[in-house]
Amino acid sequence: EVGVLRSQIKQGVREVILCKDGKGKVGMAVKSISKGVFVGFVYKNSPAAIAGLRFGDQILQINGEVVAGYSEDKVNKVIKKAAPERIALAVRDRPFERTITMQKDSAGNIGFAFKNGEIKQIVKDSSAARNGILIDHNLVEVNGQNSVGLKDKDIHALFDAAPRTCTVTIMPVFVYHHMVKSLGSLKKYMDHSVPEI
Amino acid sequence: EVGVLRSQIKQGVREVILCKDGKGKVGMAVKSISKGVFVGFVYKNSPAAIAGLRFGDQILQINGEVVAGYSEDKVNKVIKKAAPERIALAVRDRPFERTITMQKDSAGNIGFAFKNGEIKQIVKDSSAARNGILIDHNLVEVNGQNSVGLKDKDIHALFDAAPRTCTVTIMPVFVYHHMVKSLGSLKKYMDHSVPEI
Repeated sequence: EVGVLRSQIKQGVREVILCKDGKGKVGMAVKSISKGVFVGFVYKNSPAAIAGLRFGDQILQINGEVVAGYSEDKVNKVIKKAAPERIALAVRDRPFERTITMQKDSAGNIGFAFKNGEIKQIVKDSSAARNGILIDHNLVEVNGQNSVGLKDKDIHALFDAAPRTCTVTIMPVFVYHHMVKSLGSLKKYMDHSVPEI
Repeated sequence: EVGVLRSQIKQGVREVILCKDGKGKVGMAVKSISKGVFVGFVYKNSPAAIAGLRFGDQILQINGEVVAGYSEDKVNKVIKKAAPERIALAVRDRPFERTITMQKDSAGNIGFAFKNGEIKQIVKDSSAARNGILIDHNLVEVNGQNSVGLKDKDIHALFDAAPRTCTVTIMPVFVYHHMVKSLGSLKKYMDHSVPEI
């Protein structure tokens, strides 16, 4: 199932090579949480989006510099002073997220309700219930495709278009709100591309 | 590395077969969190411990009954009325936890400080920093061996005895406290056996 593969959270640390665009931007915003540095925003079609960085990824190193404990400003300064052609990041795949795979029933439902992307209710004996989905979590991906910043009707459209087997990526509400609280109107420029496998 | 294998959080749902002991007990306590049912305590040498249930496991079904949304009392009643020889659980592996593998330096340190099992400080440029360990998390396993209910000096002893490559399993503080808050003196009977691979 491609949705399962596209959403899969991988163990270990990967290298991501970024460059800067014509305006000197890599196209991401970072958030510092619990002494870690996380990708809180990926601008669509930016170098960060093209390199496959995702909302929720943890940045461990930038050009060999360990960024644990850095503030958002400090990270931005490191990126600003980096050479534009090649910025090497060490990245851990979305540590605050996990995936749950469900099956649509004959009516096309997987069995949970959400509001503003937050899971609010679970339908008794549904696929969502059987697979252990939880409230107090936000949807961040549907079959690996980012849904942060989408309206509920657009997220519903992603589910409607999905095949019978459907994987959601979720994040605890308390982390999610911290990640997105300063995004404001930037949210509408979020990268929602379908990730490569 | 056996520690990596022993701590590995597996995808998907597994079946666990329990029985009751001579006193009619399976040897676990459950906690309801966000409409999910979680293993909050495993009694050492109990049927639950022997079957490989772990602190943090999510119980999805008991003898085919979907338990999403069940209170702790309701789950206990389901277990109480089940036949003693064979109770089949559908279990998701520790969804609120994740693992981080680090390397001891030449002095044997991996680079973080903890108090009452909670990660409090990260040493600059240490293996912990390079691998993205976070504060606001509790240690729940060292190389896959449960450390809940252990004193800090006993957790330090686990690290001292560990090989150079060392994997910790961590859980966000807010979930951890919810999981253990009603345990009280039961904590000292927690299963701390080394899990099978």
